[in-house]
Amino acid sequence: MAPHPVPRTFTGGMWTFGRIIDRYATDGYGPVVPTLDTIELAAESGELVGLDLNYPFDGGVTVEDVGKSLTAHGLSAVCVTPVIYDRGFRNGSFTAPDPATRARALDLAHESVDVARRLGAGYVKFWPGQDGYDYPFQVDYATLRRHAVEGVRDVARAFPDVTFAIEYKLKEPRNRLFWSTAAATLLAIEQMGVDNVGLVVDFGHSLFAKENPAEVLTLAHSMGRLVDIELDDNYREWDDDLTAGALHLVETLEFLHVVREIGWDKPLKLDLFPYREHPGDAVRESVATLRALEAKAAALPLDALRAAQAAHDAMAVQRIVRTALLG
Amino acid sequence: MAPHPVPRTFTGGMWTFGRIIDRYATDGYGPVVPTLDTIELAAESGELVGLDLNYPFDGGVTVEDVGKSLTAHGLSAVCVTPVIYDRGFRNGSFTAPDPATRARALDLAHESVDVARRLGAGYVKFWPGQDGYDYPFQVDYATLRRHAVEGVRDVARAFPDVTFAIEYKLKEPRNRLFWSTAAATLLAIEQMGVDNVGLVVDFGHSLFAKENPAEVLTLAHSMGRLVDIELDDNYREWDDDLTAGALHLVETLEFLHVVREIGWDKPLKLDLFPYREHPGDAVRESVATLRALEAKAAALPLDALRAAQAAHDAMAVQRIVRTALLG
Amino acid sequence: MAPHPVPRTFTGGMWTFGRIIDRYATDGYGPVVPTLDTIELAAESGELVGLDLNYPFDGGVTVEDVGKSLTAHGLSAVCVTPVIYDRGFRNGSFTAPDPATRARALDLAHESVDVARRLGAGYVKFWPGQDGYDYPFQVDYATLRRHAVEGVRDVARAFPDVTFAIEYKLKEPRNRLFWSTAAATLLAIEQMGVDNVGLVVDFGHSLFAKENPAEVLTLAHSMGRLVDIELDDNYREWDDDLTAGALHLVETLEFLHVVREIGWDKPLKLDLFPYREHPGDAVRESVATLRALEAKAAALPLDALRAAQAAHDAMAVQRIVRTALLG
Amino acid sequence: MAPHPVPRTFTGGMWTFGRIIDRYATDGYGPVVPTLDTIELAAESGELVGLDLNYPFDGGVTVEDVGKSLTAHGLSAVCVTPVIYDRGFRNGSFTAPDPATRARALDLAHESVDVARRLGAGYVKFWPGQDGYDYPFQVDYATLRRHAVEGVRDVARAFPDVTFAIEYKLKEPRNRLFWSTAAATLLAIEQMGVDNVGLVVDFGHSLFAKENPAEVLTLAHSMGRLVDIELDDNYREWDDDLTAGALHLVETLEFLHVVREIGWDKPLKLDLFPYREHPGDAVRESVATLRALEAKAAALPLDALRAAQAAHDAMAVQRIVRTALLG
Repeated sequence: MAPHPVPRTFTGGMWTFGRIIDRYATDGYGPVVPTLDTIELAAESGELVGLDLNYPFDGGVTVEDVGKSLTAHGLSAVCVTPVIYDRGFRNGSFTAPDPATRARALDLAHESVDVARRLGAGYVKFWPGQDGYDYPFQVDYATLRRHAVEGVRDVARAFPDVTFAIEYKLKEPRNRLFWSTAAATLLAIEQMGVDNVGLVVDFGHSLFAKENPAEVLTLAHSMGRLVDIELDDNYREWDDDLTAGALHLVETLEFLHVVREIGWDKPLKLDLFPYREHPGDAVRESVATLRALEAKAAALPLDALRAAQAAHDAMAVQRIVRTALLG
Repeated sequence: MAPHPVPRTFTGGMWTFGRIIDRYATDGYGPVVPTLDTIELAAESGELVGLDLNYPFDGGVTVEDVGKSLTAHGLSAVCVTPVIYDRGFRNGSFTAPDPATRARALDLAHESVDVARRLGAGYVKFWPGQDGYDYPFQVDYATLRRHAVEGVRDVARAFPDVTFAIEYKLKEPRNRLFWSTAAATLLAIEQMGVDNVGLVVDFGHSLFAKENPAEVLTLAHSMGRLVDIELDDNYREWDDDLTAGALHLVETLEFLHVVREIGWDKPLKLDLFPYREHPGDAVRESVATLRALEAKAAALPLDALRAAQAAHDAMAVQRIVRTALLG
Repeated sequence: MAPHPVPRTFTGGMWTFGRIIDRYATDGYGPVVPTLDTIELAAESGELVGLDLNYPFDGGVTVEDVGKSLTAHGLSAVCVTPVIYDRGFRNGSFTAPDPATRARALDLAHESVDVARRLGAGYVKFWPGQDGYDYPFQVDYATLRRHAVEGVRDVARAFPDVTFAIEYKLKEPRNRLFWSTAAATLLAIEQMGVDNVGLVVDFGHSLFAKENPAEVLTLAHSMGRLVDIELDDNYREWDDDLTAGALHLVETLEFLHVVREIGWDKPLKLDLFPYREHPGDAVRESVATLRALEAKAAALPLDALRAAQAAHDAMAVQRIVRTALLG
Repeated sequence: MAPHPVPRTFTGGMWTFGRIIDRYATDGYGPVVPTLDTIELAAESGELVGLDLNYPFDGGVTVEDVGKSLTAHGLSAVCVTPVIYDRGFRNGSFTAPDPATRARALDLAHESVDVARRLGAGYVKFWPGQDGYDYPFQVDYATLRRHAVEGVRDVARAFPDVTFAIEYKLKEPRNRLFWSTAAATLLAIEQMGVDNVGLVVDFGHSLFAKENPAEVLTLAHSMGRLVDIELDDNYREWDDDLTAGALHLVETLEFLHVVREIGWDKPLKLDLFPYREHPGDAVRESVATLRALEAKAAALPLDALRAAQAAHDAMAVQRIVRTALLG
């Protein structure tokens, strides 16, 4: 398979450039950043070609405002991500116990499709971070599953020409999320019986779900369900959203190797939460690391690697990887 | 759905009664226990009606010997579990890099079907503990998957009237196993396209795979793929195989509640590794705990529970569970 | 040792009754709750005798206001906890890289001593949640340690008649906190060479630091460094702050058994974050569970238990514990 | 501080070259390897200058035999590690419930001192892998602590001119080990009141104890308690004993940077369990990785690094580390 012919480009999430809050620094890790400023900051990073956009926008900003700002800064709309995880959805979106909330989730999804079309976004992303539970016995699992699967299916059927993607995550903010792992999500998507729903594989989510990110990338691609790819890093227990390659250089290299092997020629998205860092620095540092690793991935001796893999020869692959990484 | 009408019975694993070894106590945690003695010890526990049997048997013991001993002690053969995880399969069984080993795994699987038939066992269980990898880049994931899926599929197709079950586990002895989680296993089974392969849900495996055991039990049952259920406990990071209910009383209660809800009327199997304990004590302690919890599960106020679950009302379910457990 | 002669009482944290925010529900899991309302809500729970008070107070509320409200509601001030973990201390408090921030932390600590005296609080609590780091190589560990130890030591020396306590936690909001485990904290306290600094042992923090809470309680008490005890629960990987006993009934029972054994006759504090639950319900549910477990702990057959423990007899203790818990 | 003036040398553990067994491959991952053959294999790796020796030796091999073999192969005795973790000590060594076993542990420790002297080993290492517990309530923690601390203290006092070191580990084979973390071990050593007991910091043990290995190295050195350093790697949850640098290149680089900073000029020891790999390959691969990383550590721009660390500037250190590692 031929490697992608043009230099890799990168996209980011709007949230990386906004004010980050947590349960302790409830006054935020910095001042409020208006929506249009996040776009400007993203552009100023100098390394991004598009943005994942949380919708609705804050502060009375319209879709036109966002569209104009993106254009002015030379950024594309990667996808629209409806905010189905704030206070209004604190007990769930598509799986909320009350039908009214489920209906609101559906409405917001439909609205997001419209916004995506107007902004020329590639897909609508669902990150159902409140869909799950916290305590044993809290929910009836069959009902939770039915709501989760039917909710996304209904949206997907309503817009057969639109691509939807689910970004799975094991936990946070709920202690347990329904869309937890790649396999759980792929299995539920298969049960939907629709063609236009796929997966966003987030390297960090995969790591702390105790998966091997390179393996699930291979799986999602083989099933034709890979819609987008996100990069970041963490300590394998939580979604720390550190800069890409900060900790797991070998696994990130392997991930990028698979990205090449499957012929992925779209941009890679960064999912960063730079609580205490300048977001532009975090983007540039991530991109510099990823470019360096992509170059090393491109230089891997593929025949030798495949021979070692065919033999499951751990020491031979270690030699190859070490030489590629450290010279 | 009506609760099971007769008292719950329990089965066990032959390994619980044999000599346990690990990488440090290489002289074992006790003396060698001949195969037929493990059956006798199992019977002496006074709480088991059947055994999961590792095959081949040690020390020249024949299938007839085992059959007679089981009969003499009033035990049934629950299933036959081919030993596809010892030295001969240290690089994998169905996914071994060399075709000869894969062929040996297939042969042993066929032989196990024959043994299962002769012993009247309910199914053949695969626990492919060496099928996976240890290092990044060590294997080609697509090839690993193909071998894993096709290996089991080929056996299943060869014996359409026999039930097969895969016992998934996240890791150990390999750092990463192919059959890792319930969803990953169910997805791969769906891809096989056969009807006679299902899942063994082991409570402890599920816990340390970061699943919720009660949730995966619901899922496996809903897909018609639940073949057997194993009980034990651990600290959520490793397959400690402690006595059932030793640590996770609430989750075990919820698990047993789902066992009732799905109308499971077969025995529950214990998967214990009593390194330093008398195996009979470990069985009796587990059974006593499970019986106590089953009685409490049976006494749950179902209408109130369902109402609380319909509202996702964590505090209401906590009250119900606390009252059931602690009075 | 005689058990405590009067019924156990409970205290809580002011934060449990305020608005909880996280990085996703940045509009909070509920409306803003003014400071004095949190005191009223705490009193309304009907189960608390005192409060752990974050200082400074929000919204222009004075120490007098808080004092009067506590008195009016029959609540004591358990301790004053300076807010050394919000935006102003996002890079650390006593260990911040800039001397001005370290000075501000010191000033706030001094001020908190004054507030504690005025409110009759038993101690000043440090929870240095921003003192640590996120990335490898980010800090010089010797310098970090020096600042951490000297910061607390300087405050302690300035007020030799005041009790101070450090609440350790492995991580969050930093990926790595300096005051990480009981042993790490006790070792650093010993190096301070002061008598008036001790430990708050939080059951949940201990669990996800991979400690055994009952064991560290024993250790902290034996060194004369146990200042307060907090209860809650989690899934062993993160500070979920669920209701006490929600998951770990056996470990909570053992913890309460040690609480009795060491003759702890002060209240037990609840550290809860009821994101989606009514805080009063979370308090009442926790207290009901703890009271039930304390009754069971009080009824443990101590002679039999001690004999089993002297023999390290796991199955004998399991029998005793099961009988105590499940009847 | 000046860097070490001569090329780094490496040592290994005898166990790396012997037959490895686990609870599934009870017939071992390879054939039996006689004691003297492990020495020969270690020498054949071409990269080791000394060995950590488990004592007693298997198969009637004498101390003289081992001494001659070491000399013949140009290897030194790094330390003697009494086997206080096999079947005879399955319930503990210094903390065993029965006095007779505790006495046997003491005797074996004394004998090991004698062996260490005869072989010219640098220290006697205790790895008390059976000293701990598996279930809640199983032991009285104060008694366990007393036995653990007094046991080592008594040996240390009996041989004031001999160096002893404790290799801590969070778990395995017990679910909980007494000598669990660096801080817990240092605290207990301080309580012993002896000068000749220190710590072996094992990179992998530190990782899965949720410590930062570089930080604990700094701490142990600052207290004058650092006796030896071991290298390996794992997935942060278990003692996988993979080749050094297989996964955590950044953390291993930081660890080696601290090794330089503290002026450590002794060899670094490898602690590997190459279940399915040739041990010589595992040693050579580890050493090649460590040499490459040491060269990169030596080339770090220290002034820039220290300035970034003084500011806790995560992005600046990331840039420095990335440039050093990836060019």
